[in-house]
Amino acid sequence: MSTKHLHLNAFLMSTGHHEASWRLPESNPVANTDVEHYRNLARLAERGTFDSIFFADSPALFNEVGRRPSGALEPTVLLTAIAAATERIGLIATASTTYNDPYNLARRFASVDHVSGGRAGWNVVTTATLEAARNFGLEELPNHRDRYQRAAEFIEVSHKLWDSWQDDATLADKERGVWGNGERVHRINHVGRYFRVQGPLNLPRSPQAYPLLVQAGSSEDGKELAAKYAEAVFTAQQTLEEAQAFYTDIKKRAVALGRDPDGIKILPGIVPVIGSTEAEARALEEELDRLIVPEYARDQLARRLRLRPEDLPLDQELPADLPDEDEIEGAKSRYTLIVTLARRERLTVRQLIGRLGGGRGHRTFTGTPEQVADAIQDWYDNGAADGFNVMPAVLPSGLAAFVEHVVPILRERGLFRREYTGTTLREHYGLPRPAWRAPAAVGV
Amino acid sequence: MSTKHLHLNAFLMSTGHHEASWRLPESNPVANTDVEHYRNLARLAERGTFDSIFFADSPALFNEVGRRPSGALEPTVLLTAIAAATERIGLIATASTTYNDPYNLARRFASVDHVSGGRAGWNVVTTATLEAARNFGLEELPNHRDRYQRAAEFIEVSHKLWDSWQDDATLADKERGVWGNGERVHRINHVGRYFRVQGPLNLPRSPQAYPLLVQAGSSEDGKELAAKYAEAVFTAQQTLEEAQAFYTDIKKRAVALGRDPDGIKILPGIVPVIGSTEAEARALEEELDRLIVPEYARDQLARRLRLRPEDLPLDQELPADLPDEDEIEGAKSRYTLIVTLARRERLTVRQLIGRLGGGRGHRTFTGTPEQVADAIQDWYDNGAADGFNVMPAVLPSGLAAFVEHVVPILRERGLFRREYTGTTLREHYGLPRPAWRAPAAVGV
Repeated sequence: MSTKHLHLNAFLMSTGHHEASWRLPESNPVANTDVEHYRNLARLAERGTFDSIFFADSPALFNEVGRRPSGALEPTVLLTAIAAATERIGLIATASTTYNDPYNLARRFASVDHVSGGRAGWNVVTTATLEAARNFGLEELPNHRDRYQRAAEFIEVSHKLWDSWQDDATLADKERGVWGNGERVHRINHVGRYFRVQGPLNLPRSPQAYPLLVQAGSSEDGKELAAKYAEAVFTAQQTLEEAQAFYTDIKKRAVALGRDPDGIKILPGIVPVIGSTEAEARALEEELDRLIVPEYARDQLARRLRLRPEDLPLDQELPADLPDEDEIEGAKSRYTLIVTLARRERLTVRQLIGRLGGGRGHRTFTGTPEQVADAIQDWYDNGAADGFNVMPAVLPSGLAAFVEHVVPILRERGLFRREYTGTTLREHYGLPRPAWRAPAAVGV
Repeated sequence: MSTKHLHLNAFLMSTGHHEASWRLPESNPVANTDVEHYRNLARLAERGTFDSIFFADSPALFNEVGRRPSGALEPTVLLTAIAAATERIGLIATASTTYNDPYNLARRFASVDHVSGGRAGWNVVTTATLEAARNFGLEELPNHRDRYQRAAEFIEVSHKLWDSWQDDATLADKERGVWGNGERVHRINHVGRYFRVQGPLNLPRSPQAYPLLVQAGSSEDGKELAAKYAEAVFTAQQTLEEAQAFYTDIKKRAVALGRDPDGIKILPGIVPVIGSTEAEARALEEELDRLIVPEYARDQLARRLRLRPEDLPLDQELPADLPDEDEIEGAKSRYTLIVTLARRERLTVRQLIGRLGGGRGHRTFTGTPEQVADAIQDWYDNGAADGFNVMPAVLPSGLAAFVEHVVPILRERGLFRREYTGTTLREHYGLPRPAWRAPAAVGV
């Protein structure tokens, strides 16, 4: 058995990734604000030796509250609450570079890293919704290119702040009355296009030095950002061929920038719907799809496609005339994925809604634990994935089924760890703690 | 015994409020980033049935790191980590209205309130240092009046966001497939001088609805802000007469604005140095003062007074010619307090440094538990305080001494609770949960 193995992240979304999951008899419909619900999920994932758990986020309320559990605890707060109830599992929070200041956010992630003993990760997003822009004084969504340029500079500033203290800056010399060595704590004096930040950070270097950097957009700009900075990439891929192409593309871009291709882990999403027999799994999937309220889902699809709901009759295919990706300022790659999926499989709007309601653009996989393990191994063995972003359709039962029945198979096949060998998130992903660099040496 | 009693907040600062406390043999000099240190302090304060714990904060590193423990965990993260280890005690975090966005911060406090079961408080500060301004793209500190106007609007926007969901917005009707009632979730459409925020908040109303609002500046603008919005006021007062005048002033201002004077609790700071005999307490105080490195302290004093360190010979009084408070853009009331203290008691710079190093402008009180209890009762009985912001000179030992020896005396005298009667921070302070108001009804 090689020490190299696949990596698993648990994407935790209230009652599960399927939009109708909250309607199942077993579900707690107000799980979205229940910290105990999330603590239990994290402990479950930790029993399954997952590398990490992860929360998506956007600083806006953009679904109708009628449709499904709405509103979410702020992820750095939620993950800190979970840190106290877990010991090893990594804690990845989404935070926007468009609607934060680098000083505050870099400090908050460093704080989570200190408090959790080196388990913090940051999913860097640029936030693609108009609703968010309008919560921060803007009339319109900043354009895609601009958001990504700001994101790159935001990350550079964060790196500089995390390096503004050298590891040996603290002396704690009680005898001489000298607590720290001021020559090892540095102003960063960053002056860029988007930010002017003097520094230093008001916090010594944390256990991991930098949180694990994660990126999840798959547009051209998103892939460039990932290739340059990300250490893990969450992505939505529907077929092996697409996933292989994406995998190869990202690794190649990273290598072209002088990076080790193993330093950037590619984790496609998978929405497993697990049953002890295939029939049982199908029955669960059908029950979930039956609980979708199609009118709600159609409204959201219409917004994504820049159409009116009445332009999308439920039992017809998508209209032939849709905007190009270039015209979309929001989540570009997700837009293209949806349109491509609908066209390739000639789905009606109702069928498309079922697919999206279950997987939200991610690959759904319905079957037995053995079949799920096979699906995972197939992509892992064939250069399409370094691991997976596991998005259970129903929580907690879907995660429990994965931990109890799929993980043992993956372990048996030598594909996954039997126990944690490290204590930090970086160690779980096989990534080094960044060496200190003088702020002036961090290039923009 | 009346149900009315005094309120106690524990102000937790790494190894203690005395700047040399970290040099004592008992102290953990890296306590400032040690979450376990703070969890233990919080549990100790909870054993003493304190109303709350509190962390000061500024988004900048403004002391020399040589002098004493420098850098701090971000308070909302730290308090969330503490929430999991405690059950009842209130959790008050300082956050700046000058260097945050209302949407993010209102959400973060609401999240802490959800996660802690209704124990969140927010100490609203405008942040008076140039170092902070320069971490957020500004060349100069925004002027005092401007910072306070922004703070007022920031609070109004936060109120609107916390009221953007009605308490009964969540239906969770699995049968009909309707999770929430969209008519009870409101955009706030705030358009003001500093902020444009559409809303709604992406989080249902929290257990307390609003975190407890605390204010700590005692300038004219600060007192106006407190009278209008604050539910607890932390203040530095050196004498009974000054404290009575401040107390009466704030209550009168609140009443003039139509508020119940009991709805705003005044808590002067007290730095107790406790010994089982007066001599033992004095010996501890002298040991601490002896450990101050006077040159460091003089540098900081010189910065506050807008002088060069060489203008402040250690064994002379302050120079006669100092700037007026009006010329100070930073912490105005603290500046005046220091100058008044030095002049009134004709202190040399060295003596002033001892007083400030011990209490940082707050009232130090050195004595036996009985004497400390007397000092507290004196101000409480004489219209100078509704309670105290207790700032132990050394941590954890100073807090342990207070909990073990002063609290029982206060309980015996019927001045302080024997056990918690409520579960939320508002209940501890005898303050109601705010009723929901339509966003349009919240006046600016």
